[in-house]
Amino acid sequence: MTQAIRITACEVIDLRFPTSEEAHGSDAMHTDPDYSAAYVTLATNRPDLVGHGLTFTLGRGTDLCVAAVRALADQVVGWTLEELVGDFSGTWRRVTNDSQMRWLGPEKGVVHLAAAALLNVVWDLWARAEGKPLWKLVCDLSPQQLVDCIDFRYLDNALTRAEALQIVQANEATKPAREAQMLESGFPAYTTSAGWLGYSDDRIRKLCRAALAEGWDHFKLKVGANLEDDRRRAAIIREEIGPDRRLMVDANQRWEVAEAIDWVRALAEYDLWWVEEPTSPDDVVGHAEIAKAIAPIGVATGEQCQNRVVFKQLLQMRAVSFCQIDSCRLGSVNEVLAVLLLAKKFGVPVCPHAGGVGLCEYVSHLIMIDYIRVGASLDNRVAEYVDHLHEHFVHPTVVRGGRYLAPDSPGYSAEIHPSTLDQYRYPDGPVWRAKTGG
Amino acid sequence: MTQAIRITACEVIDLRFPTSEEAHGSDAMHTDPDYSAAYVTLATNRPDLVGHGLTFTLGRGTDLCVAAVRALADQVVGWTLEELVGDFSGTWRRVTNDSQMRWLGPEKGVVHLAAAALLNVVWDLWARAEGKPLWKLVCDLSPQQLVDCIDFRYLDNALTRAEALQIVQANEATKPAREAQMLESGFPAYTTSAGWLGYSDDRIRKLCRAALAEGWDHFKLKVGANLEDDRRRAAIIREEIGPDRRLMVDANQRWEVAEAIDWVRALAEYDLWWVEEPTSPDDVVGHAEIAKAIAPIGVATGEQCQNRVVFKQLLQMRAVSFCQIDSCRLGSVNEVLAVLLLAKKFGVPVCPHAGGVGLCEYVSHLIMIDYIRVGASLDNRVAEYVDHLHEHFVHPTVVRGGRYLAPDSPGYSAEIHPSTLDQYRYPDGPVWRAKTGG
Repeated sequence: MTQAIRITACEVIDLRFPTSEEAHGSDAMHTDPDYSAAYVTLATNRPDLVGHGLTFTLGRGTDLCVAAVRALADQVVGWTLEELVGDFSGTWRRVTNDSQMRWLGPEKGVVHLAAAALLNVVWDLWARAEGKPLWKLVCDLSPQQLVDCIDFRYLDNALTRAEALQIVQANEATKPAREAQMLESGFPAYTTSAGWLGYSDDRIRKLCRAALAEGWDHFKLKVGANLEDDRRRAAIIREEIGPDRRLMVDANQRWEVAEAIDWVRALAEYDLWWVEEPTSPDDVVGHAEIAKAIAPIGVATGEQCQNRVVFKQLLQMRAVSFCQIDSCRLGSVNEVLAVLLLAKKFGVPVCPHAGGVGLCEYVSHLIMIDYIRVGASLDNRVAEYVDHLHEHFVHPTVVRGGRYLAPDSPGYSAEIHPSTLDQYRYPDGPVWRAKTGG
Repeated sequence: MTQAIRITACEVIDLRFPTSEEAHGSDAMHTDPDYSAAYVTLATNRPDLVGHGLTFTLGRGTDLCVAAVRALADQVVGWTLEELVGDFSGTWRRVTNDSQMRWLGPEKGVVHLAAAALLNVVWDLWARAEGKPLWKLVCDLSPQQLVDCIDFRYLDNALTRAEALQIVQANEATKPAREAQMLESGFPAYTTSAGWLGYSDDRIRKLCRAALAEGWDHFKLKVGANLEDDRRRAAIIREEIGPDRRLMVDANQRWEVAEAIDWVRALAEYDLWWVEEPTSPDDVVGHAEIAKAIAPIGVATGEQCQNRVVFKQLLQMRAVSFCQIDSCRLGSVNEVLAVLLLAKKFGVPVCPHAGGVGLCEYVSHLIMIDYIRVGASLDNRVAEYVDHLHEHFVHPTVVRGGRYLAPDSPGYSAEIHPSTLDQYRYPDGPVWRAKTGG
């Protein structure tokens, strides 16, 4: 009998990249993001088995997520991997609903981001222990095992456990074909690299051409600061990409409800596929109002959708045409699975949010899981891709010809090179010391 | 010309009371709360003028709120009071929507609780500088000045600035009469002291009798763990209080939607006035479903309602019959004013959540503001009161004959005795050192 794998220690690093210096990732609400992460490692009693993972942040406040992960670490350190994943929905409930900490949420904000980071590492560990990429681990679970990873609390009026099981079971027969297809040709992606708000017209045009040359056929533009600028930039992109490729716009929560409707109508001549985050991420009713008014242009949201309960309502209210899960805001794969199943039940395609630090790496697994086990369709599915910061990952996402390829290394792909951790550690890494003259 | 008041320093203390030892405050989801606070003081260039305030927490994680207040402190330290309150909606936006920190919310969880703490102190300072209790300061603002304290972002499809102004203006003529009435006889309160989940039947009965003797006529029972226990305890309270006094139940988010409906129906024979927090605080659609099914019993929620955007939807969807604002979860008086105005627009009474640490002190001001300037009615209004921990406050809430009296000391009433701060400081105060053997 082999010795049980036991978590022995949790280390958390405040990791920040000074991306604000070049306006990468800038949008109407986040004008100067320093792409960052609370980066977590879990050591085990096996020296060769260490889990890695993170939650994505924008700079200031990363220290709060780091502190919150440390506060939650007792929920996994000292436990065996078998105890943690053998009752994974129970573990999830324990990590996300500590009887004192839940007052600080519940299931939202700093503490939920921290729970995501910690649980992302548990999933990484499980996949490494099994010697499989995370997506393959999940794809090899029985329908029962898969559903057992989910905490169904508060979902009962939209999706029961029995319905979830039925969805997964209905896909079993055709699963091998979809898995083979993903290994063969990957999952469609789109690029946001061209359309950041801080970029000049000339830069947008050049990036568009470069992206076309690379085979991209979905393009996204950040909008919402100034209508005339948005019209000019949308015209540039539409001119560059021609009439057949898809153009999406992203307002990053800039608008009131009526304003969103007016603004989108003023951009409609550029043939928009979706408008993303038109207003407050908390405003289900507002999104429903917008969706009704701007159809057939779709509403997309989710990167700041705090948990499965808000996604449930967005779907119940027909407020979204595209469900943009975030791998680090939802409480790890457990809660992502719940939302994939909800979206399937309501017939809404999942188009994950990515970019940032590690989000593309995580998403490359989640889209495989969705296609192979839940959504089982590529219709109107496209996952975000941004070509920044991948060089820091030990197993970076591979995107070719506008498609995410299936990851092939064991784990959940968020391991970062030790040299990067040393360089960009905040505030004491050399990159930051040089900036502050420290 | 007098010298401008300038904020010179911010100090934050992690303050915890070991209330879990006696099951005070226990409920279906929070089984062992240690009532706590991130306690904030702002020093000024006037030695005699120091602001005090807090956000309420349940123990573990208070340190996260403390760290978050420190991270936000630069938004007020170094500024003059005039700069801060002269454009108070601008200050609010700056504190709650830092371009990097907002990723951690936005406007929810740890960071929003911290913003509330910090802004509560700015309000305290303003009132002290004017030599008035906070409620009186707000009552003496012109309608325009009052509305200028509010950030109306994301409210446009429910309440415009013009509508808000109209509500306040319409109350102007009758304002002096209501102010006189509040000074004369106070605002109706109800007590939760009798019905905590961890209490025995016998203790509940005794506490009921004591509360009746003190003049209370609204009683609240914590429910949701076990239906038979709930029926027995509801019967005890109804027996003690007779048929004419009001009985409310509070499930603290324990149920699924269908379960809530069934459970409330099973308790209906005890003549319930409201059911509080039947399910997830994030589930507007679920609350609407429950409200429709259990009418005429009302749904009450709000103590964990994260911000004005969620309150807006609860009102738009007719999901609540009672609006339970929380003075430390909403972003201070600024956001409370927005919700009072929303509730008025939708004709829903505001019945604030209180108890905890300092919540009753804060609420004693907010109910005066609501009655005198916004809601302008006492119909179905009753503010929570719990008789715990008031001895630690320099100007504790005064409740007599079941009514909150108008506070008369300058400020916002959350100043805590220095000896308490010394004793209960976590983890280094003597109370906690004695427990940990440190």
